[in-house]
Amino acid sequence: MTQSIATHPDRLLPADPATRTIARELVEVAETLPLLSPHGHVPAEAIARNDAFPDPAALLISPDHYVYRLLNADGVNLEEVNAGTSDAADPRDVWRAFCKRWELFDGTASGYWLRRELVTVFGIDDATIDGAHADELYDRISDVLARPAFRPRQLFRDFGLEVLATTDDPLDDLSAHRQLAEDQDFAGKVLPTFRPDAYVKFWNPSFATNADRLVQEAGDGLSGYRGYLRGMENRRRHFVGNGAVSADHGVWRPEAVRLDDAEAAELFEKGISGTATEAEALRFEANMTYQFARMSADDGLTMTIHPGSYRDHSTHTVERFGPDTGNDIPFAVDFTRGLQPLLSDFGNSDDFNLVLFTLDETTFSREIAPLAGFYRAVYAGAPWWFLDEPDAMHRFRAATTGTLGFSRSSGFIDDTRAFCSIPARHDAARRVDAGFLARLVVEHRITEERARTAMVELTDTNPRKVFNL
Amino acid sequence: MTQSIATHPDRLLPADPATRTIARELVEVAETLPLLSPHGHVPAEAIARNDAFPDPAALLISPDHYVYRLLNADGVNLEEVNAGTSDAADPRDVWRAFCKRWELFDGTASGYWLRRELVTVFGIDDATIDGAHADELYDRISDVLARPAFRPRQLFRDFGLEVLATTDDPLDDLSAHRQLAEDQDFAGKVLPTFRPDAYVKFWNPSFATNADRLVQEAGDGLSGYRGYLRGMENRRRHFVGNGAVSADHGVWRPEAVRLDDAEAAELFEKGISGTATEAEALRFEANMTYQFARMSADDGLTMTIHPGSYRDHSTHTVERFGPDTGNDIPFAVDFTRGLQPLLSDFGNSDDFNLVLFTLDETTFSREIAPLAGFYRAVYAGAPWWFLDEPDAMHRFRAATTGTLGFSRSSGFIDDTRAFCSIPARHDAARRVDAGFLARLVVEHRITEERARTAMVELTDTNPRKVFNL
Amino acid sequence: MTQSIATHPDRLLPADPATRTIARELVEVAETLPLLSPHGHVPAEAIARNDAFPDPAALLISPDHYVYRLLNADGVNLEEVNAGTSDAADPRDVWRAFCKRWELFDGTASGYWLRRELVTVFGIDDATIDGAHADELYDRISDVLARPAFRPRQLFRDFGLEVLATTDDPLDDLSAHRQLAEDQDFAGKVLPTFRPDAYVKFWNPSFATNADRLVQEAGDGLSGYRGYLRGMENRRRHFVGNGAVSADHGVWRPEAVRLDDAEAAELFEKGISGTATEAEALRFEANMTYQFARMSADDGLTMTIHPGSYRDHSTHTVERFGPDTGNDIPFAVDFTRGLQPLLSDFGNSDDFNLVLFTLDETTFSREIAPLAGFYRAVYAGAPWWFLDEPDAMHRFRAATTGTLGFSRSSGFIDDTRAFCSIPARHDAARRVDAGFLARLVVEHRITEERARTAMVELTDTNPRKVFNL
Repeated sequence: MTQSIATHPDRLLPADPATRTIARELVEVAETLPLLSPHGHVPAEAIARNDAFPDPAALLISPDHYVYRLLNADGVNLEEVNAGTSDAADPRDVWRAFCKRWELFDGTASGYWLRRELVTVFGIDDATIDGAHADELYDRISDVLARPAFRPRQLFRDFGLEVLATTDDPLDDLSAHRQLAEDQDFAGKVLPTFRPDAYVKFWNPSFATNADRLVQEAGDGLSGYRGYLRGMENRRRHFVGNGAVSADHGVWRPEAVRLDDAEAAELFEKGISGTATEAEALRFEANMTYQFARMSADDGLTMTIHPGSYRDHSTHTVERFGPDTGNDIPFAVDFTRGLQPLLSDFGNSDDFNLVLFTLDETTFSREIAPLAGFYRAVYAGAPWWFLDEPDAMHRFRAATTGTLGFSRSSGFIDDTRAFCSIPARHDAARRVDAGFLARLVVEHRITEERARTAMVELTDTNPRKVFNL
Repeated sequence: MTQSIATHPDRLLPADPATRTIARELVEVAETLPLLSPHGHVPAEAIARNDAFPDPAALLISPDHYVYRLLNADGVNLEEVNAGTSDAADPRDVWRAFCKRWELFDGTASGYWLRRELVTVFGIDDATIDGAHADELYDRISDVLARPAFRPRQLFRDFGLEVLATTDDPLDDLSAHRQLAEDQDFAGKVLPTFRPDAYVKFWNPSFATNADRLVQEAGDGLSGYRGYLRGMENRRRHFVGNGAVSADHGVWRPEAVRLDDAEAAELFEKGISGTATEAEALRFEANMTYQFARMSADDGLTMTIHPGSYRDHSTHTVERFGPDTGNDIPFAVDFTRGLQPLLSDFGNSDDFNLVLFTLDETTFSREIAPLAGFYRAVYAGAPWWFLDEPDAMHRFRAATTGTLGFSRSSGFIDDTRAFCSIPARHDAARRVDAGFLARLVVEHRITEERARTAMVELTDTNPRKVFNL
Repeated sequence: MTQSIATHPDRLLPADPATRTIARELVEVAETLPLLSPHGHVPAEAIARNDAFPDPAALLISPDHYVYRLLNADGVNLEEVNAGTSDAADPRDVWRAFCKRWELFDGTASGYWLRRELVTVFGIDDATIDGAHADELYDRISDVLARPAFRPRQLFRDFGLEVLATTDDPLDDLSAHRQLAEDQDFAGKVLPTFRPDAYVKFWNPSFATNADRLVQEAGDGLSGYRGYLRGMENRRRHFVGNGAVSADHGVWRPEAVRLDDAEAAELFEKGISGTATEAEALRFEANMTYQFARMSADDGLTMTIHPGSYRDHSTHTVERFGPDTGNDIPFAVDFTRGLQPLLSDFGNSDDFNLVLFTLDETTFSREIAPLAGFYRAVYAGAPWWFLDEPDAMHRFRAATTGTLGFSRSSGFIDDTRAFCSIPARHDAARRVDAGFLARLVVEHRITEERARTAMVELTDTNPRKVFNL
């Protein structure tokens, strides 16, 4: 077994020898720091129950739309990988389908994470990932998964995780989070995140049901839009009481408007009765983006927005397999004009943090850096989703640092439900940042000493500041 | 004569010595492969007749809007270079105007191709390209052009061309293609491409005439929109029967809508009678984009779309010199929302290939990679037109590979009518890909062995798969 | 005191040793050339009066929104730095607030300029820029500022400035410019620039007053829109007579329309009476963009346009501190469709130069390079504002050179009111260009000899040609 690229000490570092030498030292600095994961999708219940992970396919393939989207593109039907609502395939067949097509992932972000996870967490020789070895690998991973030490809480410690934020429904009782917080034997912090999307978008099939429940359960007896706003405020308070540090908003586009209460209430009723137009639905969403900023400035939950994804782009796929099945596709967005009312009112508040994520990298230099370089509430969100691969992460730094320096970015966000991939993801992000900083040193744009403190800022100081960790 | 940059073994390869060493090996891999040119504008008749090429100016300058656009910018009037409809200038004067301004082309894609073509095909010392040597060079190239061996068919062989696709009018009888296919002495494949633009855009001055002819000649006796659709289907079948593998669509924007037949028929009549508004013309074009996808899913012609070019931007220029005279200017496009209906219906068909080309590189990471990374019909088109120069080609790979890996891009498209420049164009593209892959190796993102197979995928496997070659 | 990065001979040059060696030689070529500054905001009066500069804070911090925007983001209120209309803070406290937060600027363009200015102009050890040394540095800089030799005219000479353009109100009498032109002891050229923005935008609070004054003072007795156009023409002539070479237009978006006189006159009256809608205001601005192009084609003033900045984005900030206080935020623009009427009519005029600046770098390859690569009037403006930092300047060259070569860019524009930072800004731009050209040499895309002439073209030949210097 030769040196795997998954464990090569110079992986992801720039080719130039002088730059690489400095980057290596910066990686060493980063490796002393704990993992902070202030936004992701690992369910708290899994950690609370500390269940063993399921089989290799159910752990690594079927829940990961990053992975099976490329399989689908290569001709594997989603039912063959138990994607979305499908679950009839033999997990071993799912695994085989993946191993046979392992080469599809070469050069991709998912490929990097998977390879490193398989090698360092499961002890696999990555030269053997192929159709011929699929069964052998399946058995080997299954063995590891069955080990008592291979449970979420132990891995949480082994990974060096300090904080892991989950993403939660506003009406979640957060009992799993409480159980973990009260557990004397578990030192990790598992923090809930308030995510009200399904209570805001009229086009969500369960909007009316959700909003009704919110008003009933948390509206303090008020009705309609007033009860709805009150319900949001109350549930946010509940989240804050259970350790939440942020509220996340997967908005259609980055737009905020301040509607007067009467118009907002009227739109709300149309949303409940299913009679709103698309324009009205978007206008209500923009109103709520403004309202959530107001609430964040009040209750201190850092506001994160993730705009510009056309969710469930393939109608036929969604009809068969449900939502979130690999066909969310980005489109161009406009933060500058869309968020002007919100930023003008709250952007310079000392009590408000707003993290702007984007799938449209044209906004890095054009909008996000200029906004985060003036408004004290605004931070440049780490490259997200299709942009969390090495070259795009380098482009993010190259596009924003000249305007922002090192103090105005959010820190890396793994945004994953694949718990075992978290170390690999942070490892990649830190290495890219190390390479970027090393380049600045070699180009005499910063000193080597400054690069070391910047490495800590980007990795540790900033996320603690931005998310009040 | 010192080493020309046109033949330097390291041309276009990255500076870093370790990366360059690997890139050189990858270039060697690529150089064993034939040239595949599945989209371009060389006329089949020229190869069928095997005519000698005309004089240097008529070969290299007057038909090439890439070249004379920069001359125009520098103050040379289009009539001085026999551009477009003008033809009164002495070819020798055209050539002199070009040679005097040769330095304009340094650093450009056209300059790279021309230099390599002049050095390797015509045996010129590129240090002598200037006003003082213009006549001498003219004579030398003229001599070469007169050689019996310097005919299209012989060059086709010498260049290592295996497949060359042309671009053809739907009513073309394709006799030149048939003649070539039947010629026992000519092994090259010259394939027609169905290009119906002039039969779809109401704003094309000959739309009504073209559409009428199509209905008359191929509509099976049907009339109006029904005859028009039938005519398209029939002519596509004729193309398939003559070896066509793709249909190309130079659409205004990437938009597809499925109109009901009544609305489409009504729009069609307005187009014929010249009474359609601009919005109606675009709506009909979007309908036809949907219809052509349907036809491609049916008859197997790979669909390629080239959107986002403001053709004939300079009204004054077009009035004097006709269309396609160097003033087509790109604008921003939206594949995600525009193609949603088409992709939702055909994007996961196993029998449909759709190649998305773009002049708006913001769509590389934001739209094209996510689309091609899920929909099995979709492939990321190679960088096109203003983007087919080395840095932009590297940006294309850097922006898409993290999402797509190596299996989802179309392979290089030279898109040229300059037959003698085809080897130089492929050479450049392969070298850029070699440099990109070498970087991934040195950064330990892929193994060196994998880079070699990826080199073959990008250069050979993918275009064969995408275009059914 | 170790080698400061501000004076390192390899600062901003690429890491690769072979590339760096060539880049160093190109920097030497550039260093023989004078500084040309054809667009900026230094007031002519300051040079004419040759006043001593004020205190360090009033020189370096309070007038520079590049600098205090990052301080604001970090929690320093604008009144603490005497930004905008505020002036009650003790300059020493302003300076302390800056020094304490000096690390904010590491990695930024402003940080680079400031560091180099402080080290090379004021002789400061940059390792001592921090809160602890703030007072000491304040005193030291104050001492330098008090020196008789440290006056604008002497610095003008010492900096190697040949031409410095100012930005001026159309009704400015330009007496300061005349005084300087007539001064036998001062060899530098200080040229006025016609900047009519405040006379064109209906939403400017003083539009009506300005336009009325223009008609009264320069309208040749004509009234309304006719007097307004005549006034513009007359004042431009006055500027030409006083050495102006360009007219600058900070337009909302790059849009030009040719309105008939009746419609334009009607809009003008609505603007004067404050009854125009936003759409009408933009339509009038687009009309004036067309009219100014017509005037430039006539009087020879090079037209520069700076579109796509949402000025005064933070309403609350502007209400408290006035305009131009660090909260101008870019947005996406469309040159291709917006300027079509203007370019179609004037784009190929031999007597018209139009420089397109952008804050939206997506237009570099998509629009600006294709436009400047065909229309002889059009030049690609140097990277501007948030894009005038090293990585963005490299991206500009990488995005445009493949289409444009070296003849079609404007040359560097420092666009600054910070007189003492001018050498540092040009130094940075030249080094980035040197690094870019050196890369082309090492990649065998141009010869080393050609790189040397290209260095002169980019730095000297082009701005002289574009601005008729």
